[in-house]
Amino acid sequence: MGRGRFITLEGSEGAGKSTNIGVAERCLSAMGIDVVVTREPGGTPLAEEIRSVLLSAREEAVDPLTETLLMFAARAQHLAKVVKPGLAAGRWVLCERFTDATHAYQGGGRGLESGQIDALAGLVHPGFEPDLTLYLDLPVEQALARISGRALDRFERERLEFFERVRARYLELARANPRIRVIDAGRSPAEVAAEIEARLQDFRNAS
Amino acid sequence: MGRGRFITLEGSEGAGKSTNIGVAERCLSAMGIDVVVTREPGGTPLAEEIRSVLLSAREEAVDPLTETLLMFAARAQHLAKVVKPGLAAGRWVLCERFTDATHAYQGGGRGLESGQIDALAGLVHPGFEPDLTLYLDLPVEQALARISGRALDRFERERLEFFERVRARYLELARANPRIRVIDAGRSPAEVAAEIEARLQDFRNAS
Repeated sequence: MGRGRFITLEGSEGAGKSTNIGVAERCLSAMGIDVVVTREPGGTPLAEEIRSVLLSAREEAVDPLTETLLMFAARAQHLAKVVKPGLAAGRWVLCERFTDATHAYQGGGRGLESGQIDALAGLVHPGFEPDLTLYLDLPVEQALARISGRALDRFERERLEFFERVRARYLELARANPRIRVIDAGRSPAEVAAEIEARLQDFRNAS
Repeated sequence: MGRGRFITLEGSEGAGKSTNIGVAERCLSAMGIDVVVTREPGGTPLAEEIRSVLLSAREEAVDPLTETLLMFAARAQHLAKVVKPGLAAGRWVLCERFTDATHAYQGGGRGLESGQIDALAGLVHPGFEPDLTLYLDLPVEQALARISGRALDRFERERLEFFERVRARYLELARANPRIRVIDAGRSPAEVAAEIEARLQDFRNAS
């Protein structure tokens, strides 16, 4: 039994990550693959506590480097307790958000230098990255319209330009990294699901 | 009005940090210095939340790198909101624990590589370190006897050998860094206070 595969799902708020992580899970399970579904920031009780520190609306302005260090603290714990043990046991790990999200939100969105994020990634997961990343892409105005009915957390309250920078950074990462597949999330749920299934089938066949 | 001075107080549990931070504050105030007293991890509402995540007793084993990243997350916030603005305004900042504690506890105690801690320090406070550090030194068994009457937090429950490694690392840091003054905390409170006052007076005269 070899090492499993690490597959991440990325996308802005409202792009359909929760729905499509379910689609991907069912698709991999139907292939007979033993899948662990998890998310960042979070995935362990401690990492979920860090997530709630990160997402709480608060008066104190959060320094972008503080925010990034908290993301990587949760990530280090999640890697040590969930991701690495799962992969080592031959399971496939399907994770909502990973370091690409840190580049998009804290780098693109907050303006933290890429070099600082790369330095932290090099400390927390040297030589380790997802085998496949599915990025659900949606124009920002459509994404915000979809979430407008929900209570917004601290990140969701950010202004439109912030989300434009996040999206631009995701698309830039996708151009530079062939492991990242851009999926047009503006289509019907059935069309998006069909493309996710096709991408996972291609990946399975190639691996 | 010039930049203020950054003075840290270090020491193991039971060495008398809380008492002696008060001694140092009164001494500096008596010299006519405008002092900000603060602590790590903590010093801002967000950093205090991170402190409580760090100190809570929990069943989940905390990865040493996660712990260190949380320490630096709190530190980045504290530097941005309290320490740097205080120093820039010409105030002296008197802080209980700083990066020496991370070297002692997460490096010496938990066994994290010094290079990883140095890399994080270089990211979070490049070129910045305390102007003076007072390290309250006490043999581990005396220190544990002093705290045995209190409810122990997650760090305090650690075994004796952990605290021996912490102390050894503090003493090693003090040998390598002239800014760190070792204060024998095994003497009477009045003797310790008198030495702290003498060290602060010397530092004031030299600066």
